[in-house]
Amino acid sequence: MSMEKVKDFVASNSNQLAFLDQLYSLLRQKSISAQNDGVEECAKLVMEMMNEIGITTKLIDTDGHPVVYGELINPENTFTLLIYGHYDVQPPEPLEKWVSNPFEPEIRDGRIYARGAGDNKGQLLAQLLGVKTYLETIGELPINLKFVFEGEEEIGSIHLASFVEKHKELLKADLVYTSDGSLHESGSPIVLLGVRGMLAIELEAKGADRDNHSGNKGNIVPNPVWKLIDLLQTMRDKEGNVLIEGFYDNILPLSDYETELLKKIPFDAKSVGEKIGYPQLHMNGETYYQKLIMEPTFNICGIESGYTGEGVKTIIPSTARVKLDIRLVVDQDPMDIFNKIKSHVSEHAPDVKVTYLGSMQPSRTNAELKVVQTVVHAVQQAYETEPLIQPGMGGSLPNYVWTKLLELPSVIVPYANFDQGNHSPNENIKIKNFLNGVICTAHVIDALGKSANRNS
Amino acid sequence: MSMEKVKDFVASNSNQLAFLDQLYSLLRQKSISAQNDGVEECAKLVMEMMNEIGITTKLIDTDGHPVVYGELINPENTFTLLIYGHYDVQPPEPLEKWVSNPFEPEIRDGRIYARGAGDNKGQLLAQLLGVKTYLETIGELPINLKFVFEGEEEIGSIHLASFVEKHKELLKADLVYTSDGSLHESGSPIVLLGVRGMLAIELEAKGADRDNHSGNKGNIVPNPVWKLIDLLQTMRDKEGNVLIEGFYDNILPLSDYETELLKKIPFDAKSVGEKIGYPQLHMNGETYYQKLIMEPTFNICGIESGYTGEGVKTIIPSTARVKLDIRLVVDQDPMDIFNKIKSHVSEHAPDVKVTYLGSMQPSRTNAELKVVQTVVHAVQQAYETEPLIQPGMGGSLPNYVWTKLLELPSVIVPYANFDQGNHSPNENIKIKNFLNGVICTAHVIDALGKSANRNS
Repeated sequence: MSMEKVKDFVASNSNQLAFLDQLYSLLRQKSISAQNDGVEECAKLVMEMMNEIGITTKLIDTDGHPVVYGELINPENTFTLLIYGHYDVQPPEPLEKWVSNPFEPEIRDGRIYARGAGDNKGQLLAQLLGVKTYLETIGELPINLKFVFEGEEEIGSIHLASFVEKHKELLKADLVYTSDGSLHESGSPIVLLGVRGMLAIELEAKGADRDNHSGNKGNIVPNPVWKLIDLLQTMRDKEGNVLIEGFYDNILPLSDYETELLKKIPFDAKSVGEKIGYPQLHMNGETYYQKLIMEPTFNICGIESGYTGEGVKTIIPSTARVKLDIRLVVDQDPMDIFNKIKSHVSEHAPDVKVTYLGSMQPSRTNAELKVVQTVVHAVQQAYETEPLIQPGMGGSLPNYVWTKLLELPSVIVPYANFDQGNHSPNENIKIKNFLNGVICTAHVIDALGKSANRNS
Repeated sequence: MSMEKVKDFVASNSNQLAFLDQLYSLLRQKSISAQNDGVEECAKLVMEMMNEIGITTKLIDTDGHPVVYGELINPENTFTLLIYGHYDVQPPEPLEKWVSNPFEPEIRDGRIYARGAGDNKGQLLAQLLGVKTYLETIGELPINLKFVFEGEEEIGSIHLASFVEKHKELLKADLVYTSDGSLHESGSPIVLLGVRGMLAIELEAKGADRDNHSGNKGNIVPNPVWKLIDLLQTMRDKEGNVLIEGFYDNILPLSDYETELLKKIPFDAKSVGEKIGYPQLHMNGETYYQKLIMEPTFNICGIESGYTGEGVKTIIPSTARVKLDIRLVVDQDPMDIFNKIKSHVSEHAPDVKVTYLGSMQPSRTNAELKVVQTVVHAVQQAYETEPLIQPGMGGSLPNYVWTKLLELPSVIVPYANFDQGNHSPNENIKIKNFLNGVICTAHVIDALGKSANRNS
C-alpha cells in the first residue's frame, strides 16, 4: 500500500516540473568524453544534485575523467545496493541532422530531445530522483546505497576497471543495479542479465608520404584505400563471417533456462524495422535475438581517406584509416581477440598499423539467483506488468567489472524508450519513461529492503 | 641571333621582378572551381593582364565558369597558333599540411609556393609573358595567336567540349599549344603528344535510413561500408586488374616509332621515389612508362563513412560514399566505361547508386607531323638541350577537344618542375622554370613563324 504514495508523488504536476527542470540542467551541460568537452563540469553538477538529496559524494580521480561516488549508509541496514551509471555522452555529430540543438533540450510530442537524454543522463537522474521520492514519501531507506557514476562509458570505460580494482573495499555491496539501454521494442520492461563486450580498433594504411596526383602517378604509387579494402576482405566474408583465426573460440552457449527466456521475448519485425530506419528488415524473433545477443559483430564504424567534399579532387591519398568496433559475447576476451587481429594483419598486410582504441569484456549474471528474482518482482510492481528477463543484450556496458572483478550479481533495468536514438541525431527520452524510471527505482529499493529484512 | 634578345630580356632583374609581381597577383586570387570560390574574379584578372600586353579579350559564358578568350591577329600571317590553359585551381585541402598560406605566395629556396603555382597559373602566365617578351624584343608577331583559358579544368572541363563545338569558326587554327604538367623528372624538357582520359564517379551505398547504435543493432542492420567493400572487390583484383567486363576493350597499342620514343625517356627510380614521397619505388623505366602512359587506372580518390574524428563513435553508419577517378587510355571512351560500370554495379549491388562526376576522353597526336617537329626544334633552342618526345602522359587534359572536335594537331610543352606538387599541399613552381617558360613561348612563336614563311 505504501508504494502508492510513490506513484502519487511522481504523478504530481509540481514534482514533475521540478524533475524536468533538473533533467534540463543536466542535459544542457555538455560532457562529451571523446572530445573532453565539459566532462568535469558535468561531474560537479551531478554531485550537487546528489548532495541536495542528502547523498554524501566525492569526486574520485582516475587516470581519465573522474568518477562521481556517493553513498547513503545506515549501519543498521544489512543489504547494500550499488547503483551504476555514466554522466558522459557521445559526440553529437552529424550536427546537421538534429532537428533542435543537441545541448538545448526541447520537448516535442512528449519526448525530451537532447544528446544524453536517454543515454544515460535521463536514466541516471531517474535513479537519483527515485531515491529522493522514496525519502520524501516512505521515509528512511531500508538498504544502503552506493553510487558509481563514471565519465568514460562512451569511450569504452577505459579506467573503470582500475578504479574498481583500487576501491574494492569502498565498493563492497550485495548487488549492482544499472539503468542503461532501452525497454523492449514492445514497450515491456526488461531485466537484463548480460551484455556483449566490445573491442574498438583502428587500422591505418600508408601509401606514399604525401598525396599524389592520380594522373601523374596513377599505377605507380600504391593506394592505401585499396590496401585497406584488400585487408578487410581477408577478415570477413560476404556473409559476414569473421575469418580471423580463432575468433569464434571461447563462445559459451546459453543454458536451457536462458534459451527459454529468449524465446519469450516478443518480436515484431515491422515495428523494429520502422524504429531503426530499416523497414526492409526480414527476420524472425529467434534469429534476431540469436544474432543480437549470442553472436559477435565485426562492424566498421568509420572510414576515411582522401577528399570527400564537393566535386572531385583527383589524388592518390597518402593515408587511409578505418575504425572497427567489434562486439564480443561471453566468454570472448577482448585482448585475446585484439592479439588475433594483430597476428592476422601482420600476416596479410604487415605495413598496416593496428591501434587499440578501447575494449570491454562481455558478462552474464545467473538468472536463477534469488536477488535477481526480487528485482524482477519489483519491476513488475512498478510497471504493473511482467518484465522480460533477457540473459543478454546487443550493446556493451562495463558490467564485467562487477561480475568478474567484484564477483557480484549485476542486473540492468533500462528506463529509456526503445526508439531513444542513442548515439544518433535526435536522441530522446519519453517523459513517461523518465518518470517510470523514478518509480521503478523506489520499488527496487523497497523490495530489496523487504527481502533483506525477511532474511535477517 | 635575334632570339638572344629574348633571353637577355628575361635575364634582366627588373623584368623578372615585374614578372613575379604579376604572378603573385594571379596566385593571390583564388579560383577554386570545385567550390566556386573566386573563379569569375580570377577570369577578369587574367583578362586585364592580357589587355596590357595588347591582346584583344572577351569573356565567353559557358553553362559553368566562363572562358577567357583572346586574340592577336595580323591578316598577313598565314599560321595561327591556339594557346590553351586554365585559370582555375584545385581545392587547397588539407590546409594543415601547407607550410605557408596557399593563397599568399611565398618564395623558399628559389620556388614560389602557392595553390596554382604550377597548375596552371604559373605556366599560363609564362605563355602570356612569352608573347609580351617577343613583342618587346623582336617586334611584331610572325603568326596569329588565339587564346583559350578555361575555368573548369580541375573539375573535368565539363563545358569545354560544348564551348569548342559552339565556337569552331572562332577557334580555327593550325596547331594547339598547351603548357601544363611538368618537365621530366630528369629536368629535361618534354614535348607531349597525348594524355590519358579520365572518368570520375561516386558510388553511394545505403544501410538503414539513419545511423544506428552498433551494439543495439549490430548484426541486424546492414553496414553500407561493407556493402561498398564487397562491391569494390568485384571491380578490381588484388593485383590491380580491373574486373569490369569490357574495361580493357578498345585500348590501342603504340606504333613502333612511339615505342622507340618511350625507350629514350630516362628513368631514375630512386629520384622519382624521393620526389613523390615513396622511396620504396622499385620499377624499371620501361614498366614505369608503360604503366603510366599505356595503362588505365582504377583509383579511389576519396572514401567516407561514419565517424572518423577523435575517439570512437560506435555506430552503424547509414551511408557510405566512395569517389573513384579512373584514368583512360586511347581509345577507351569514358561514357562507354561509365555504362559498363553501371551494368556491373546493377548486377552485383543493385541498390548502390552510381553518380557520374565528370570525364575526359584520352587523345594522341602523331609524333611524325612536321609542325610537331618544328615545336620540338624550338624547345631545343629555348632550353639548349634536346627535349624528350612523349607519346602520352599519365595525367589528363581536355586535349581531345582539339584532336577530336577540331581535328587539329596538339602539342603539350610543360613548363613546371617535376616536383611541383600539383593537387597536393605546398604546390610550387621554381622561378627558373617559370622564366624558362617565358623564353620557350617566344621561341615557339618564332619557329612556327619562320616555318610558315618558308612554306608560303
